[in-house]
Amino acid sequence: MAHALRLAERGLYTTHPNPRVGCVIAHGDEVVGSGWHQRAGEPHAEVFALREAGGSARGATAYVTLEPCAHHGRTPPCADALVAAGVARVVIAAEDPFPQVAGRGIEKLRAAGIAVDTGLLRDQARELNIGFFSRIERGRPFVRVKLAMSLDGRTALANGESKWITSEPARADVQRWRARSSAILTGSGTVLADNPRLTVRLPQDEAFAPPLRVVLDRCLRTPAGSHVLDGSAPTLLLHGAEAIADGEYFDHVEHVAVAERDGALDLPAVLALLAKRDVNELHVEAGARLGGALLAGGWADELLLYVAPVLLGDQARPLLALPPLASMAERWKLAVIEQRQVGADWRLRLRPQPA
Amino acid sequence: MAHALRLAERGLYTTHPNPRVGCVIAHGDEVVGSGWHQRAGEPHAEVFALREAGGSARGATAYVTLEPCAHHGRTPPCADALVAAGVARVVIAAEDPFPQVAGRGIEKLRAAGIAVDTGLLRDQARELNIGFFSRIERGRPFVRVKLAMSLDGRTALANGESKWITSEPARADVQRWRARSSAILTGSGTVLADNPRLTVRLPQDEAFAPPLRVVLDRCLRTPAGSHVLDGSAPTLLLHGAEAIADGEYFDHVEHVAVAERDGALDLPAVLALLAKRDVNELHVEAGARLGGALLAGGWADELLLYVAPVLLGDQARPLLALPPLASMAERWKLAVIEQRQVGADWRLRLRPQPA
Repeated sequence: MAHALRLAERGLYTTHPNPRVGCVIAHGDEVVGSGWHQRAGEPHAEVFALREAGGSARGATAYVTLEPCAHHGRTPPCADALVAAGVARVVIAAEDPFPQVAGRGIEKLRAAGIAVDTGLLRDQARELNIGFFSRIERGRPFVRVKLAMSLDGRTALANGESKWITSEPARADVQRWRARSSAILTGSGTVLADNPRLTVRLPQDEAFAPPLRVVLDRCLRTPAGSHVLDGSAPTLLLHGAEAIADGEYFDHVEHVAVAERDGALDLPAVLALLAKRDVNELHVEAGARLGGALLAGGWADELLLYVAPVLLGDQARPLLALPPLASMAERWKLAVIEQRQVGADWRLRLRPQPA
Repeated sequence: MAHALRLAERGLYTTHPNPRVGCVIAHGDEVVGSGWHQRAGEPHAEVFALREAGGSARGATAYVTLEPCAHHGRTPPCADALVAAGVARVVIAAEDPFPQVAGRGIEKLRAAGIAVDTGLLRDQARELNIGFFSRIERGRPFVRVKLAMSLDGRTALANGESKWITSEPARADVQRWRARSSAILTGSGTVLADNPRLTVRLPQDEAFAPPLRVVLDRCLRTPAGSHVLDGSAPTLLLHGAEAIADGEYFDHVEHVAVAERDGALDLPAVLALLAKRDVNELHVEAGARLGGALLAGGWADELLLYVAPVLLGDQARPLLALPPLASMAERWKLAVIEQRQVGADWRLRLRPQPA
């Protein structure tokens, strides 16, 4: 199953909006077939593995990181294919919560007399598709907020300059987190201040599904000529009901009105809309206000924090705008999921803890 | 020599104002005597090692972490003792910059026909006595600024509450850094806000020389009943020339006027005064202003930074007050000397890098 998970990871940048899935078919220690899902619309992991195994699949055990599908989507049901190949046993890491599967894959296998076990390395399998599970189970993407700061928690100078706090390896690393995401979210303030491209820059030979660029632009302030309007990736502006698309250039970019709340776009409405558009992992690169609002509202699932060993001082810009705390007991606690060195900087992955 | 350094470290909390020194006497691989300096006024490391070696010192090699003394201080010269014992060779990690030694120990040994080598593990030996070397060579203590902050670089809530950001193990760890210091420095603002004790709390069986408590109290604002006035450790208030000791309680605490500059006590004058009082390592626990002034002036040699995996938000108090930066090129760069986990927190030791 560990092998199947490593295979599944090969689809990290390409399977959107599908989950990353790997499959290994074996007789005891001997692997007779293996595969992984590469791209939506193309065959699932099980199909590649069964093709490789051929007649050796008969009586074998299939290890699959996600419950085989039971429905006709863009490809025929994998459960049927496993039955047809005469597999004796299927070991599944995680059950598929997708309504058209949700246990039916397992049922189909068992009905055909195949022994089915579930739960082996389930946590790792769910982690690999944390966005997919979030979208299906919670109706919203997994929200990862990327931040780069000095050691004293500052993201830019008082004059707004933020290029660059972190080292080149850290900035290259960010591209991989963008690449695995279905969408990249920012606010119009960041567009106006930094004019980011929000595209993925990876070495030429590395494939990826270009993430949707999403700008929270309540008043449609995004100016003509902004990089996010350059057509180099799909782009979506979300705005308030009363915003006026003042400029012909808005004809060439999709813009959709969403509900407002307290003078800002309603974040749950934004997340629900993005989930409907099949966004699994949502990568956020925004300012202290949007980042703070996501955290304070309980919608930030993970902070991807790059910390440079430099100081910018108390005049520089803060990391996250959060409501003032009345007592230390109210502090925001974070679980450290991972910490590592990237170039001269630290990379921390943190998840908010329940209060 | 590594063994001698480990022995020297045993004097970490007790040798003040003397350096920590260890000595190992050996014939090849066989150690015949070892010792370390324990307390000012008591015998030096070499004396303990020679006592243990007895007649076996003849023809042996002595490994000493610091050049043996050549002068009559509170104890007779160790160079003479090594000569008298018939040691054949002396290996020295670091030369002693103390004016009454400064090469004369080595000269004495060589004049007696003893082979002398220097420089083995010199960096480590200097690091162990970094405060002693600073005081003798630069005329000021080694300044270590201790800070405890949230991950977003905040040291207290907007309302001043700072108890506690970090975990109990981190706060216990701080006691060891206090214990190794000759003095603990704070500002009167911190005394007024937090009323700290600035004493050392170690397990009962651990000896230490109580550090001098120093309060930068330009206007002598330290109120009666403050913990720093409780007589539980030597205490020194430094104030401006025009400050008025308004209260009988000032009769019971030493207070000394120092020069002022730009409306604050002159930090170089403060450091020079402390060096004259034999302060090797100066441990600073103060607010963002004093900490920032030490860093901005180039007087902070090390930051001892505890980071808790929590967020306090942009309304909370900043780490260090520093002059605003005009461009990213001016950011304060830090070299990471050490990083480790202490309880739930990180402990970082950082040293400012030349711009």
